Amino acid sequence: MKTALSALGKRTAPPAISWLMKTALARPKLISLAAGFTDNASLPVELSRRLLNEILRSPKTGQPALQYGTTAGEPRLRALTASHLQKLDGGHDRAHSAERVIITGGSQQFLYMTLEALCDEGDLILVEDPTYFVFLSILQSCGIKARGVKLERDGLDLAHLEKILTQLKKSGELRRVKGLYLVTYFQNPTGATTSLAKKRGALKLLKRFERAAGHPLYLIEDAAYRELRFDHGEDVPTALTLPGAKQRVIYAGTYSKPFATGARIGFGMLPEPVYTAVLRIKGNHDFGTANLLQHLLTRALAGSGYDQQVAKVQKNYARKARVMKRALAEHFPASVEIWESGGGLYFWARLPKGVSAGVHSKIFQAALKNDVLYVPGELCYADDATRRKPDNGMRLSFGSASEANIREGIRRLGAVLRKFVK
Amino acid sequence: MKTALSALGKRTAPPAISWLMKTALARPKLISLAAGFTDNASLPVELSRRLLNEILRSPKTGQPALQYGTTAGEPRLRALTASHLQKLDGGHDRAHSAERVIITGGSQQFLYMTLEALCDEGDLILVEDPTYFVFLSILQSCGIKARGVKLERDGLDLAHLEKILTQLKKSGELRRVKGLYLVTYFQNPTGATTSLAKKRGALKLLKRFERAAGHPLYLIEDAAYRELRFDHGEDVPTALTLPGAKQRVIYAGTYSKPFATGARIGFGMLPEPVYTAVLRIKGNHDFGTANLLQHLLTRALAGSGYDQQVAKVQKNYARKARVMKRALAEHFPASVEIWESGGGLYFWARLPKGVSAGVHSKIFQAALKNDVLYVPGELCYADDATRRKPDNGMRLSFGSASEANIREGIRRLGAVLRKFVK
Repeated sequence: MKTALSALGKRTAPPAISWLMKTALARPKLISLAAGFTDNASLPVELSRRLLNEILRSPKTGQPALQYGTTAGEPRLRALTASHLQKLDGGHDRAHSAERVIITGGSQQFLYMTLEALCDEGDLILVEDPTYFVFLSILQSCGIKARGVKLERDGLDLAHLEKILTQLKKSGELRRVKGLYLVTYFQNPTGATTSLAKKRGALKLLKRFERAAGHPLYLIEDAAYRELRFDHGEDVPTALTLPGAKQRVIYAGTYSKPFATGARIGFGMLPEPVYTAVLRIKGNHDFGTANLLQHLLTRALAGSGYDQQVAKVQKNYARKARVMKRALAEHFPASVEIWESGGGLYFWARLPKGVSAGVHSKIFQAALKNDVLYVPGELCYADDATRRKPDNGMRLSFGSASEANIREGIRRLGAVLRKFVK
Repeated sequence: MKTALSALGKRTAPPAISWLMKTALARPKLISLAAGFTDNASLPVELSRRLLNEILRSPKTGQPALQYGTTAGEPRLRALTASHLQKLDGGHDRAHSAERVIITGGSQQFLYMTLEALCDEGDLILVEDPTYFVFLSILQSCGIKARGVKLERDGLDLAHLEKILTQLKKSGELRRVKGLYLVTYFQNPTGATTSLAKKRGALKLLKRFERAAGHPLYLIEDAAYRELRFDHGEDVPTALTLPGAKQRVIYAGTYSKPFATGARIGFGMLPEPVYTAVLRIKGNHDFGTANLLQHLLTRALAGSGYDQQVAKVQKNYARKARVMKRALAEHFPASVEIWESGGGLYFWARLPKGVSAGVHSKIFQAALKNDVLYVPGELCYADDATRRKPDNGMRLSFGSASEANIREGIRRLGAVLRKFVK
């Protein structure tokens, strides 16, 4: 007898890093520079307790927090989210209105529902090369194809994007393209931040090819790491600030990373008709994100709690990134190219051409034997038959490891690399 | 230019009751007997405050609650869920193990992912006639067909189920059938509870037709209202206690309704290979339900808090149901058939044949004019071309309305009915 599973049910592969997790668990002395977890010590335990006490100390504020809300999310949180984004974008209000906001269970759920709303099996999404691997898992599960666009230190290679769009137009595949997915701040896995000029260039290129596509081509901006920057200096504006954004930019944001991953609230901003489609889909998923968490975030954002927490987190990661940077300078061979990031949770290391750090490489095996784990960069490249998957990248996370473990982990990795790299 | 939406994105209809909600908001004096909300007064405000304080009073317990967990859910909550179900099922442990549990964002998310794992567009799910309308919304959105099986006061009509399976076998459509969905306790919308004998009969019938289907036919048991029973007397065991359950029963449960809808934690129990498929899909949806809520429920279940809360809720709804029952006896014409429930949030009223209580009926319009709202039963019937949708049912909820409003609402409805019904 066959299984009763759907095509999606049969197709959906195990998460790319589930075996990494298992590997980590099986070796208790292992130092993991692989996990994308945030730092335990900077989680807002005391702040959350205070805010939840405020919410639950009376039936008047406690009952609404423990009751169903609306599918789009708590109106006050949607408004605060819109004004928060507006503030980060220097007062811009081009596409920053509360009516365009939907609150979700992390930005992950938002990305999932957006792809449901946009893509049929066989459709195509353009992604950065490399990109966020759980996004690639959704594409794989849903039978959506991907095409990788070269990533430079300040965002994607626009000439390459143009070349790909031109090829797709020629081959007739442009009709299947629905959008371009960019992780624009301190990208996972490379730490790269996309400049505003490149966002503008990408949006223009998409617009130029719309006619040939026969439908809108959306720029999906994932800003998950935006608030995890190390300095309080200038922040790059989002694509929401650009002309045409209101019609063509889909923005994914989250409070999980800056506030708490265990009180996961994400959000999205969308143009019609995608907004309505995602809202209806959300109705079927769960008719709205847990209200208690939404009320917690509302209170954090309305007072000073959220900003203080973000400042604390930024300081913490800045320190840990400095520790990793120093360790890399000390222990890694000079021929390894390091992409240093101004925020987020990751550094990206590129080995010389021809040297593999991939899943089956000698380097990965030797690292494991020496009890240190990283994410092989090849896991972050889309299945794209038009190019070979590079396997010389390593994602190094300073998110959850202690400073001592970051130092020791990089020392161990450096020792391994010196055996395989000149 | 066409839209870029997927077939699903284009197809997904607005929620069946969104216009009911809007109608309610537009008439501030309206008494709504339509909402499926739980009662505000019985929400565990004080209990949640105490438990969250316990969790967040130290970094040791607070940090894990504010950090990511695992995709399947908090191990302790999975274990407590399995043993809780085992206890409710009289010590049975046939299919009640923790390894089969997945924790989700309400049971709604679980139902959604289960249908994703099982059904392709054009597949078929058998449902009760009538059934839970948001389940029907998922089917509609995903392009899954439905066939309605007649519902009696003790569960579905087994002879009708057999007839339908036989017809589907003959027409060749049985290969597209993936399962039978039953809301087995105090059903939404009718309040009917399925007897164990009928669960057994349904499971046997499904088994008998599997060979012709060519794949397993699953019994999807949705027990969302199970713990909202009015007396502490005997509870019907779940289908998990039946022979073959471990291979063929998919069980959906929730802590939302008995505990708090705003701290939404649901769960499912599944056989392989559906378990693995749903787990992978969950990884793509959100890689795990918010940990803080899971820790809250874990603590409630591990102590006496959960049981005390359930007892409180049961007592409260029992009182409100009695109020509705008395008002129905006093104000409704004798020719209206009332399905009284032993739990849940709903009574079901069936008007004499030929009298419509449907969305476009004079009765519904007159009720609105008199500021009282109910859910027209016709919204709870699947799109099934093989029969006309009955339109003489009304779902009457005593969940969120006050006792005074239940009395007054039923009085108003009764007055309307007396004009149209003998």
